[in-house]
Amino acid sequence: MAILERHDSNGIATLHLNAPERLNALSDEMLAALKAEIDRLHKDTDTRVVVIAGRGKAFCAGHDLREMTAGRQAEDGGAAYFADLFSRCTEVMLGLQQIPQPVIAQVHGIATAAGCQLVASCDLAVAAEGTRFGVNGVNIGLFCSTPMVALSRNIHRKQAFEMLTTGEFIDASRAAELGLINRTAPPEQLEAETRALAETVASKLGAAVRIGKRAFYDQLSLPTADAYAYTGAVMVENLMLDDTIEGIDAFLQKRPPSWSKA
Amino acid sequence: MAILERHDSNGIATLHLNAPERLNALSDEMLAALKAEIDRLHKDTDTRVVVIAGRGKAFCAGHDLREMTAGRQAEDGGAAYFADLFSRCTEVMLGLQQIPQPVIAQVHGIATAAGCQLVASCDLAVAAEGTRFGVNGVNIGLFCSTPMVALSRNIHRKQAFEMLTTGEFIDASRAAELGLINRTAPPEQLEAETRALAETVASKLGAAVRIGKRAFYDQLSLPTADAYAYTGAVMVENLMLDDTIEGIDAFLQKRPPSWSKA
Amino acid sequence: MAILERHDSNGIATLHLNAPERLNALSDEMLAALKAEIDRLHKDTDTRVVVIAGRGKAFCAGHDLREMTAGRQAEDGGAAYFADLFSRCTEVMLGLQQIPQPVIAQVHGIATAAGCQLVASCDLAVAAEGTRFGVNGVNIGLFCSTPMVALSRNIHRKQAFEMLTTGEFIDASRAAELGLINRTAPPEQLEAETRALAETVASKLGAAVRIGKRAFYDQLSLPTADAYAYTGAVMVENLMLDDTIEGIDAFLQKRPPSWSKA
Repeated sequence: MAILERHDSNGIATLHLNAPERLNALSDEMLAALKAEIDRLHKDTDTRVVVIAGRGKAFCAGHDLREMTAGRQAEDGGAAYFADLFSRCTEVMLGLQQIPQPVIAQVHGIATAAGCQLVASCDLAVAAEGTRFGVNGVNIGLFCSTPMVALSRNIHRKQAFEMLTTGEFIDASRAAELGLINRTAPPEQLEAETRALAETVASKLGAAVRIGKRAFYDQLSLPTADAYAYTGAVMVENLMLDDTIEGIDAFLQKRPPSWSKA
Repeated sequence: MAILERHDSNGIATLHLNAPERLNALSDEMLAALKAEIDRLHKDTDTRVVVIAGRGKAFCAGHDLREMTAGRQAEDGGAAYFADLFSRCTEVMLGLQQIPQPVIAQVHGIATAAGCQLVASCDLAVAAEGTRFGVNGVNIGLFCSTPMVALSRNIHRKQAFEMLTTGEFIDASRAAELGLINRTAPPEQLEAETRALAETVASKLGAAVRIGKRAFYDQLSLPTADAYAYTGAVMVENLMLDDTIEGIDAFLQKRPPSWSKA
Repeated sequence: MAILERHDSNGIATLHLNAPERLNALSDEMLAALKAEIDRLHKDTDTRVVVIAGRGKAFCAGHDLREMTAGRQAEDGGAAYFADLFSRCTEVMLGLQQIPQPVIAQVHGIATAAGCQLVASCDLAVAAEGTRFGVNGVNIGLFCSTPMVALSRNIHRKQAFEMLTTGEFIDASRAAELGLINRTAPPEQLEAETRALAETVASKLGAAVRIGKRAFYDQLSLPTADAYAYTGAVMVENLMLDDTIEGIDAFLQKRPPSWSKA
């Protein structure tokens, strides 16, 4: 049984983290499997939306502490291994934003430490009511410094600082209030609600969504005037697509568009 | 009848977008009229606050798709025209933040695509309950990349991404929760509530508000320490104004200030 | 009686602003006292958390307008004095984020102008229900340009702009909604709730919290990829601590950690 299961249906790829006995920890093997899928998705124009979910009781409980502890056996006490681990983890977290498909976290149970970072790194997130989120590494003496990068780019500063220094959990409805997730759903409807969101996004013109997702993250870090210069060019590129011409024509003619769906 | 009506009263300039049959689309003519007013307001120290409102059923439904489609007749398929269009639109959106007067969007009906960008680009916004906001270009294959610049600087990341990729509308109360607008009002009180907000701002010392608005946007993009160095100098400039000396004296003497109102 | 009282208990330093007759204004003397404590805290590894509170009816009403007015007697009308004042105030505001201990504002009564900036500059804030927050300098002709730096890095843009240009107060529950504070408490429980939060943070491994707080502010201003490179190195540094090794071992062995508490 693969540590990362992939199922494709109607242009939606669902990735299930599948190490339930370890609460889907981001072990070396799990990170490698995620990285391999991300590499595949980079070049995959058939897949329009990605959903990340978890098997078992938890979405993801963060790094694999047993494996990390074993890494300390090296002569340097694990320093080189850890540096490499965070580098590989970062590749996955940033990779989710760099692939052309919107990525939706389908979250249940717990999402803690790097598991909470995974939610924050996805473009969208739906969580089951009752899900608990935390960046609780501080409770064992390991401040969640890398998860903080993603978290503090999702929610306001004081609320992020509180989660990081108290190690306390917040529930799904609070996560929605803060901006960490988009929606909550009753646990028994989590999959259906996430699927509905995925299908909504997948129903759009794929080329436009790809152009838009790339532009979204690129412009965020630019000064406003530069962001406009950049996105103005992106709009022109988008307008030159045959399917966009058709989309606008169809709208003006009050008929549904007939897209090549490329 | 002008495409952009201006009425001045007690230092408050109200601009009405007036192309109701096109849902106040940001056509070439509308953008030029807005740009002309912005140029005038840059040098206008009598006007203390600007309100932007719309005639008819909608505040603003974004770019004029018929006009854009006509632009495709050019040899380059419209590319040069579109590039110029977004450049002119950006001048208007940034211009609203560069003029010395606070600008309030008075929003009703719908504010979609570049119409939603217009709301996000104003300094303040009041919306009638029931108003619908969307960056729904994705529905016709044209991702709202330029509106995204303003939107993603008003609200959190995941909620902006959701609006952009689902094309779904949010209502006024949700817009207030997310931070896109300041207040909602019953439709029949929209104008009065907006007017009350405008009058509150207009009652302040104009020179202080002008100094403050400029500093607001300038400091946002600076590293915190640089922002403090810059605004410290702004405070000194503000403190040297005769009217500010009077304002502080009056406060200490528990009497109303007697301002030149410059 | 000192203008700034310090009481230490169980690694928590409580600083009481103690000029109640001036609503704890940030006078030259108060700023100097705060700066002196900040300098002391920089090197103080026994203190794990700092609480800032105010004696009397108000948390803090901002700068000392009488003292500032007296400063106008200088030949330059006070310009040099004011420039120095904002420089010293900035040192305090930034200093709160640069010291290794998390700083919690315990807020009651009013927090206005630079007093609101003080709340925004603390890492965390708890406020009594009924507390009023404002950046109301605009009411006397002095726009709150320096407080705006801290405020606009705590809450969304339109809500900050509204507070700055209307001079209107918001109450504690609205401040919590906007993100300016973490929690509200009934007035009679303010001290106990703040204390509980302080004790929670103080119970964590001090070295991890110090590492994390420094990294929090450092990474905020970096592009995301740089923030990850930086915090990845911070995680490795954290993992090399003996107490962190113990914390992880204890967790894996399901026992409480035995920390040196350094």
